[in-house]
Amino acid sequence: MIDFEHGLRVYWEDTDAGGVVFYANYLKFFERARTEWLRALGFEQERLRVEGGAMFIVGGTTVRYLSPARLDDFLQVSVRLTERGRVSMTLFQQARRASDGALLAEGEIRIGCVDSRTFKPTRIPVSILQALDAAASTLPAPIPE
Amino acid sequence: MIDFEHGLRVYWEDTDAGGVVFYANYLKFFERARTEWLRALGFEQERLRVEGGAMFIVGGTTVRYLSPARLDDFLQVSVRLTERGRVSMTLFQQARRASDGALLAEGEIRIGCVDSRTFKPTRIPVSILQALDAAASTLPAPIPE
Amino acid sequence: MIDFEHGLRVYWEDTDAGGVVFYANYLKFFERARTEWLRALGFEQERLRVEGGAMFIVGGTTVRYLSPARLDDFLQVSVRLTERGRVSMTLFQQARRASDGALLAEGEIRIGCVDSRTFKPTRIPVSILQALDAAASTLPAPIPE
Amino acid sequence: MIDFEHGLRVYWEDTDAGGVVFYANYLKFFERARTEWLRALGFEQERLRVEGGAMFIVGGTTVRYLSPARLDDFLQVSVRLTERGRVSMTLFQQARRASDGALLAEGEIRIGCVDSRTFKPTRIPVSILQALDAAASTLPAPIPE
Repeated sequence: MIDFEHGLRVYWEDTDAGGVVFYANYLKFFERARTEWLRALGFEQERLRVEGGAMFIVGGTTVRYLSPARLDDFLQVSVRLTERGRVSMTLFQQARRASDGALLAEGEIRIGCVDSRTFKPTRIPVSILQALDAAASTLPAPIPE
Repeated sequence: MIDFEHGLRVYWEDTDAGGVVFYANYLKFFERARTEWLRALGFEQERLRVEGGAMFIVGGTTVRYLSPARLDDFLQVSVRLTERGRVSMTLFQQARRASDGALLAEGEIRIGCVDSRTFKPTRIPVSILQALDAAASTLPAPIPE
Repeated sequence: MIDFEHGLRVYWEDTDAGGVVFYANYLKFFERARTEWLRALGFEQERLRVEGGAMFIVGGTTVRYLSPARLDDFLQVSVRLTERGRVSMTLFQQARRASDGALLAEGEIRIGCVDSRTFKPTRIPVSILQALDAAASTLPAPIPE
Repeated sequence: MIDFEHGLRVYWEDTDAGGVVFYANYLKFFERARTEWLRALGFEQERLRVEGGAMFIVGGTTVRYLSPARLDDFLQVSVRLTERGRVSMTLFQQARRASDGALLAEGEIRIGCVDSRTFKPTRIPVSILQALDAAASTLPAPIPE
């Protein structure tokens, strides 16, 4: 589950009058990839929210926009877990154009787990932690919290 | 409250690679105007949802896109109540460019009131009905449900 | 190419505070399906815009919102060509939840071909017309312009 | 022009199923404020793009999401120029809820000027540089490029 990848197409809705993908939309692309990464780990966020009373929220994002993507481009968006705590984690994500591998945008996304009613930080559910640790066990080196 | 108007600016986020406002965004512009129209009548939807357990949802939209708007254009979006029932209403809305009055898009939006938990149709709160009727009393002719 | 279908997932970006898909986003879902339908017919819109100087724009939309979709739902969005002229066409589209087949939204979308610089109506490129006619030849009955 | 502020309302379109503003939308809010800041300095980006052949693009964003905003909240979004080069600049921006002053999100946005056709870096137009310098002259201390 290291270097999970999710493919997606650029549609009209993603572009702006500059003729390229509107930069804020890379945050959407990154999130789609994280959602599919969690799904691949066995977790659905709507179920987590409704049944578990917990949500992952984004606490911070740092993104570098390197090259423009255009309508009809097909992108590969990657997810790598780089830090895992008990209430939050950090992911490194990249978006590349599939046709030529050009790096379009990349960044670090910090995710926190909160109570879906109060928005107060809460422990990441144990089942998810275990799945993350199983994935993280193959990382090159442990990363302290 | 007939022909309520709300002004808004076109930003990068609203445009697409065609260089003009992405057509789906007129639904957002129309909704901003409806929200401000309700606010002008004395109602806030978040309070209605949290305290009253009711939400207005959109049941149907018919929109004609007539002329393109561009980045930096300032638009005037109108709201006219054309039909009022006990659980739903219909509004006629237009978006015009302020600088030259050009009609950009117009359409009919059908709104229904639902229980915010079950999404089942529910009566529009009496206080809102009364405010709507006060506004509607100035309409040219009564419109049967 | 009749009843073309495109599958897509509902992500956080697609939802609103009502807990369901924001209705305006069905226009985005419908467009993604139309884009993939054109791609399946052999046409890419960015190439059409840059090389051919033509764009398809949306002239009118009528959408009925029937049932709410939620985060993590997987949708099937259909495209059926119902009318084909020389500068415009009309499509009937539906969005269903894949898990139970529930009809979420449906509508008619009128598309016109315009010069990408002047936004004036122009003929749909012959190659596209031919591909559409090949698809339309299997329709139950001819639809006059 | 230091600490320019732009007010905006949170609408349904801005929220997600968590019941709060979708975090990616703060980038839109920040951009609306930057656009109004440039307009207040006398510059319109559409004119710059069409007549001047130049565009400002976002090269990097670092945003911290501190507290959730909800439907109907009115926000004040600030813009402060913190660094000014010949082809790029950096802005510090904050979004606060007007009613209680709560800091919702803040971050640094790096903007670059590019040729609107080739997307290659180009000088910020002299007239804009002069306006920025006039504004920057009131900054506490010069910031080297």
